[in-house]
Amino acid sequence: MIHHFKPNRYYNTIGWHEPALHINDGDTVVVGCVCAAGMDEHERTVTQRPNPMSGPFYIAGAQPGDTLAVTIERITPSREYGWTRNVLAQNVVDPDYVHGLPDRAAGVGRWRVDLAANTATVVSPDTALGQLSLPLNPIIGCFGVAPALGQAISTATSAEHGGNMDYNGFVAGTTAYFPVSAPGALFHLGDAHALQGDGEISGTGIEISSEIQFTVKVIKGWRITWPRGENADTIFTCGNARPLDQALQHATTEMSRWLMTDYGLDGVAVGLLMGQAVKYEIGNVFDPAYTVVCKMPKRVLALLRTYAH
Amino acid sequence: MIHHFKPNRYYNTIGWHEPALHINDGDTVVVGCVCAAGMDEHERTVTQRPNPMSGPFYIAGAQPGDTLAVTIERITPSREYGWTRNVLAQNVVDPDYVHGLPDRAAGVGRWRVDLAANTATVVSPDTALGQLSLPLNPIIGCFGVAPALGQAISTATSAEHGGNMDYNGFVAGTTAYFPVSAPGALFHLGDAHALQGDGEISGTGIEISSEIQFTVKVIKGWRITWPRGENADTIFTCGNARPLDQALQHATTEMSRWLMTDYGLDGVAVGLLMGQAVKYEIGNVFDPAYTVVCKMPKRVLALLRTYAH
Amino acid sequence: MIHHFKPNRYYNTIGWHEPALHINDGDTVVVGCVCAAGMDEHERTVTQRPNPMSGPFYIAGAQPGDTLAVTIERITPSREYGWTRNVLAQNVVDPDYVHGLPDRAAGVGRWRVDLAANTATVVSPDTALGQLSLPLNPIIGCFGVAPALGQAISTATSAEHGGNMDYNGFVAGTTAYFPVSAPGALFHLGDAHALQGDGEISGTGIEISSEIQFTVKVIKGWRITWPRGENADTIFTCGNARPLDQALQHATTEMSRWLMTDYGLDGVAVGLLMGQAVKYEIGNVFDPAYTVVCKMPKRVLALLRTYAH
Amino acid sequence: MIHHFKPNRYYNTIGWHEPALHINDGDTVVVGCVCAAGMDEHERTVTQRPNPMSGPFYIAGAQPGDTLAVTIERITPSREYGWTRNVLAQNVVDPDYVHGLPDRAAGVGRWRVDLAANTATVVSPDTALGQLSLPLNPIIGCFGVAPALGQAISTATSAEHGGNMDYNGFVAGTTAYFPVSAPGALFHLGDAHALQGDGEISGTGIEISSEIQFTVKVIKGWRITWPRGENADTIFTCGNARPLDQALQHATTEMSRWLMTDYGLDGVAVGLLMGQAVKYEIGNVFDPAYTVVCKMPKRVLALLRTYAH
Repeated sequence: MIHHFKPNRYYNTIGWHEPALHINDGDTVVVGCVCAAGMDEHERTVTQRPNPMSGPFYIAGAQPGDTLAVTIERITPSREYGWTRNVLAQNVVDPDYVHGLPDRAAGVGRWRVDLAANTATVVSPDTALGQLSLPLNPIIGCFGVAPALGQAISTATSAEHGGNMDYNGFVAGTTAYFPVSAPGALFHLGDAHALQGDGEISGTGIEISSEIQFTVKVIKGWRITWPRGENADTIFTCGNARPLDQALQHATTEMSRWLMTDYGLDGVAVGLLMGQAVKYEIGNVFDPAYTVVCKMPKRVLALLRTYAH
Repeated sequence: MIHHFKPNRYYNTIGWHEPALHINDGDTVVVGCVCAAGMDEHERTVTQRPNPMSGPFYIAGAQPGDTLAVTIERITPSREYGWTRNVLAQNVVDPDYVHGLPDRAAGVGRWRVDLAANTATVVSPDTALGQLSLPLNPIIGCFGVAPALGQAISTATSAEHGGNMDYNGFVAGTTAYFPVSAPGALFHLGDAHALQGDGEISGTGIEISSEIQFTVKVIKGWRITWPRGENADTIFTCGNARPLDQALQHATTEMSRWLMTDYGLDGVAVGLLMGQAVKYEIGNVFDPAYTVVCKMPKRVLALLRTYAH
Repeated sequence: MIHHFKPNRYYNTIGWHEPALHINDGDTVVVGCVCAAGMDEHERTVTQRPNPMSGPFYIAGAQPGDTLAVTIERITPSREYGWTRNVLAQNVVDPDYVHGLPDRAAGVGRWRVDLAANTATVVSPDTALGQLSLPLNPIIGCFGVAPALGQAISTATSAEHGGNMDYNGFVAGTTAYFPVSAPGALFHLGDAHALQGDGEISGTGIEISSEIQFTVKVIKGWRITWPRGENADTIFTCGNARPLDQALQHATTEMSRWLMTDYGLDGVAVGLLMGQAVKYEIGNVFDPAYTVVCKMPKRVLALLRTYAH
Repeated sequence: MIHHFKPNRYYNTIGWHEPALHINDGDTVVVGCVCAAGMDEHERTVTQRPNPMSGPFYIAGAQPGDTLAVTIERITPSREYGWTRNVLAQNVVDPDYVHGLPDRAAGVGRWRVDLAANTATVVSPDTALGQLSLPLNPIIGCFGVAPALGQAISTATSAEHGGNMDYNGFVAGTTAYFPVSAPGALFHLGDAHALQGDGEISGTGIEISSEIQFTVKVIKGWRITWPRGENADTIFTCGNARPLDQALQHATTEMSRWLMTDYGLDGVAVGLLMGQAVKYEIGNVFDPAYTVVCKMPKRVLALLRTYAH
């Protein structure tokens, strides 16, 4: 079943909020999302920062101990202009380089998003970049499920439940997995970026309102600790923490667990394989918790004699 | 001019050592290197750990304040078998996961390297991986120039002068740039890996002796702070430090400097461009100093109106 | 006015919960608290982990933008036996030392608390320590006010609102300051330790149920970012974050702000003074967020010609 | 035997340099040291930065695997004026606070050192501090022995061999222990501070030339990994690394080793004791490697039934 959902309220935390919509395992939702600053498809500010969430969606049958699979089918920017900050974040450069950065209060970058041409083009400010155009790569910046212990966690950050991971691999065609802590999972999403470099190092992607289509699936009894995902080429795990070192530890540990539990490897096989075949990506290095992604190519997994998919 | 050089001594530090060979700007060298454990092409241990260096090469005309460009033309494994550690390093997993790792003392992995087939195949130990074969990707694990202040720095680690960066992007076809601190630069190299995943998370790549061909070029007066590089597709900078956060800060700062100095961008243009177009890679997250690589695609740079190369 | 309060429910988050008691500015409360494991004065488990909170207390007149001052007047262990973990935490030792630690599952330490003798004595397990006795130093491990954005944050961790700081300086005679984000502040407390070394490096202090007496005061319009405190000898600020480096940055920045706002110092005076007179303590290096405390002696502040207290 | 030594050359690395003086086990040395900037007792610049070392001293009988004990008997500032930087270091405050710091290039603080009055007094610049006087606490900022592998390590930083630890506990009356890697140990020292707050957070203590008296003792076969020390009240270990977390791990691990090897404790006894009785200090949080000190009070150790000193 396909649901079309337009929120009339938004949340700045991911938590155990009253469900906005009850859906079933296997259902598809098309939902409108405002941008990180709370501006809708008409650039009207309809709610407050940070990263207002659409939802939560209550998925029938999802219980603590299950995993919620969310397949992202489409992320369509819903207005012509997106915005970025236009200065590198102070925490991503050497401390003694900060004084040389332009003032972050100096304003924002404005980008025109052309869906037909598949480009984002700098409109302002005027710099030596001119009207540089880059290919679109729409992603979901912030999504996840209600966290454990009844917590309500700011959408500025991320943790085991997902949240503001700002990873530019969360594109259409990707399935994200979240560990369910609350009955119904209580899935929230929003904060689309038309494009974003690795690390979100200026503090934003091209922030834009969006229409997002996704399909949910409850995987009963599959226990995971950190968000996972997969696409056509790779399986991956997300570690969310500061510093980057700890985010990488979480992601690496979660991949080791996955390979041991689902691919029949022992600790030595994991060491031999991950040591020579793993890939890492830096999701964000700006938010209160950073995100590191640990990836294993499916073409490598297909070589395993123990892999019987 | 092409020099063929076979070392008769090796160094476990990169420092202001007596030059092994004097060469000229523009010269090419073909050099034999032992593996990280000091074993040569016959698997004989001819020198001690860690990462014995061939060289140093004194490049005529290189002076402090210059940059040494080293173009890697060929990295050829020079024996049939390479070795790896076979357990994830304790520092790349969650601290409470360490107890579950196999004992690191349990031995090493042995891999057969087939240059014709372009594969590395697990020979032992016997695990669920069976005789898994992965494509070769030969890299230089450790190379660099004599550091400032007359220092002699262990080849286990890395810093501004290069060193044990263990980045799997240092393949044939890549040019590495090092900041010259000593007269003649005093270039050292060694520690080839037939293949290595991101991060060198088991503590090794496939360690192997090698024959390496490279060509040097002195770039007078081009001051850089951290190692840089380029290949057909990208320019990149290397930050070497702990934690990963600081390595990333160094690499990001160095890329910002590069874009401002050589590509005519101001701080706002840098923020707009890097924020949406930068890519990061994790070189190693095992050595005393970690390595993060910050990359900018040449196809993006080609769009800059200020770029007149 | 003095309130005597015995909770009938406890919270595992600090959040915008229904007030347990409404009190006035200047009131004193004597409250019973269970230990970190939810055990009361009879060692009965009456609620679940982690760190069950008594409260919240709604303080009339406290509004966002104010600061809540909580003076700790008494912390009295309310049973004879407290417990500790008995192995160093894996994250406080070198990763390659973890394998050598005893199994953390091996049990807990049991300590007899003697209020008359002012000692805590190891009862079990039997080790070379014998029945070692150490002087008591009762502290509040976890306390704070409802955080911003309507968040509900696990009592396992800490942030701007306070929380599980596990700092052994929060003893009787100390006043703690918290930034108010919710109407009434919503003050929570619990998790007393009869004694704790710096850093809480075994993962616990001597965990014990307690009776705590405190007095609240609302400081209208005094805006602080991080918890602050003072005792007879010192003023201090608390930074809560991972890694330690960031916790220290928060604490140092907060002290700089305090000295500039309330003591009439400019940035150079702050640099000269803090550089030569600051003291740091490590609150905890175990919880998800670590705590670093930055201290300035009152005897130094008394020398300032600008200090007109 | 007492040697009076006045250097005629200085080193900016600690390494395997030609000995300046050969001494015997048990000898005492009185040595002149320049300040961190290379200025002598007449404020003449006689050598270059950073932290010029007097020495090295070759101690007869010291061999790799031994420990060198250096008892600091006297640190006497040898001129009237010392200098400090006068702004907080950029790395010790929040990244978004850096822009608000005064320009670090703005000059230095000048302090008058009065040995009779035991005070350091701000002479310039003129701030709200006026002529603030603080009690002297002379320390050795940088000292250590030649590192392993023939390395020569910049005196800007520190490692297993000691170096620029900038810990304000290295006062007269303290014995420091260093792991010997080179024949004769090759002990270097210098960089006295008349006074320094915890962390050296403005980037300096009160930097001053000095006369230092110390006595050496070789402890045959006592293997240590990190510098250790003791004074009348405490034994302590020093961890030198970035980030602070790793420095703390090194110091904590080294203390655990010490308690197990020399005080007869097993892992559980270590966990019980350190968890409740350990103290930490932050040596420096400014240099390339930070220093964390882990302390155990001698009054606690005296309670151990296994301690037969």
